[in-house]
Amino acid sequence: MRYRAVISYLGSDYAGWQRQKNAVTVQEVLEKALSSALGVETTATASGRTDAGVHAEGQAIHFDADTSIPCDKIPFAVNAKLPPDISMLSCEPVSDDFNARFSAKRKTYCYKLYLSRQPRPMLEPTHAHIVVPLDIAAMREAARLIEGTHDFKCFEASGARRRSTVRTVYSLSVEAVPFAETKNADEKTDRAFDCEMLVTVEGNGFLYNMVRIIAGTLVYVGLHKLTLADVEKIISSGDRTLAGKTLPAQGLCLLKVDY
Amino acid sequence: MRYRAVISYLGSDYAGWQRQKNAVTVQEVLEKALSSALGVETTATASGRTDAGVHAEGQAIHFDADTSIPCDKIPFAVNAKLPPDISMLSCEPVSDDFNARFSAKRKTYCYKLYLSRQPRPMLEPTHAHIVVPLDIAAMREAARLIEGTHDFKCFEASGARRRSTVRTVYSLSVEAVPFAETKNADEKTDRAFDCEMLVTVEGNGFLYNMVRIIAGTLVYVGLHKLTLADVEKIISSGDRTLAGKTLPAQGLCLLKVDY
Repeated sequence: MRYRAVISYLGSDYAGWQRQKNAVTVQEVLEKALSSALGVETTATASGRTDAGVHAEGQAIHFDADTSIPCDKIPFAVNAKLPPDISMLSCEPVSDDFNARFSAKRKTYCYKLYLSRQPRPMLEPTHAHIVVPLDIAAMREAARLIEGTHDFKCFEASGARRRSTVRTVYSLSVEAVPFAETKNADEKTDRAFDCEMLVTVEGNGFLYNMVRIIAGTLVYVGLHKLTLADVEKIISSGDRTLAGKTLPAQGLCLLKVDY
Repeated sequence: MRYRAVISYLGSDYAGWQRQKNAVTVQEVLEKALSSALGVETTATASGRTDAGVHAEGQAIHFDADTSIPCDKIPFAVNAKLPPDISMLSCEPVSDDFNARFSAKRKTYCYKLYLSRQPRPMLEPTHAHIVVPLDIAAMREAARLIEGTHDFKCFEASGARRRSTVRTVYSLSVEAVPFAETKNADEKTDRAFDCEMLVTVEGNGFLYNMVRIIAGTLVYVGLHKLTLADVEKIISSGDRTLAGKTLPAQGLCLLKVDY
């Protein structure tokens, strides 16, 4: 029987999703828990790899197992074998031709930032820290330019090799959530500060580091280091060196995978 | 010169605020960073101790130092010496008779829970996990009974000794924030589930473990293990054994201290 499951993990202490010699990964810990809970050796195939330090609220996997445990009890059995930073949220039977990687239709990521003068320890594990205000109106205009179907090789880490770098970004939003203590402060038009900032992107697939480079490019726009015309040129030229820098892994979270 | 500063920390890796032999505490790490950054030995006095594992978004401290560093630069100097899980958010000069503990007029705590069938790794470090739905309407009615000036010895951990156990709770609120993926689900009246739950309490002072016991009592009301009449009786009797259990430290966060 093949199963599809939704997995969440805090990536801080892992060298990413994929099994490695010499480093603890989410896949290795999850496969051990699956095999132990279900009493059969099995492997887990994810919708895609996540890098070292990247988090997931809704990574999708498939695995094969012959087990007498009812499907809705599998998460309880597996979670009993998992550490607190990895969890199976749900599990359902799927047909044998389902593949968590190749059947994926759409993925949603969130890149989380916080904007404040000093570090915020409660946010550090899951956010990138920006110490100056950002022009959120400009960031939103730039996001409109990135939405749609484009050749996104400008937003791909060097060294990656794929047949096609054309992808569709269905939506790219930028949201600012003021810190509790500044909620009653005067709204500063367009200059976001003392807030959490969520960059949420939905697409049919993503190139290597694409979300972290998009977030970095939007931050450069928010800093006025890049103009909207620059962003248009970055996309049309396909030149990675013109785009913003790759933001750190710990701010990235895979929210969900749709099939 | 005496200074007041706001400190934030992720308490997970500390044995609480107060210095101890044989265990690393926030006070010890902070005092070392202060002394190193300012070039003078100094000690930090907090508004109150926090227990092992408890977090703070806005703990208040005072310290004395003769330094040539301008006040608004002190957080930068100190944070350069602090690990990512402790941070000084702001610093200002105060008069010599200011005392972070005895001058405190009001404190605000948040006890954070999440309600879901399976563990949520992204929330585990800062929340308590409840695996069943809670009757949030009943919890809010019980919160109304706890607000006000009462003898709160019913909500004090045993062994504590104080002259008076009368305190004023200015406000006690219960808020449910649905998980992103359930936001479009039908609103289930009164039965909160698949959500984060924030129990926020403001008071003129708190007894030992008082917030964690109040949160535990509200959870018992939400489970229908306690009725509103029981809550009235708990307060009037002053009997700790009738109240709910003390919820775990990692869900508690000191939001702010007012002077």
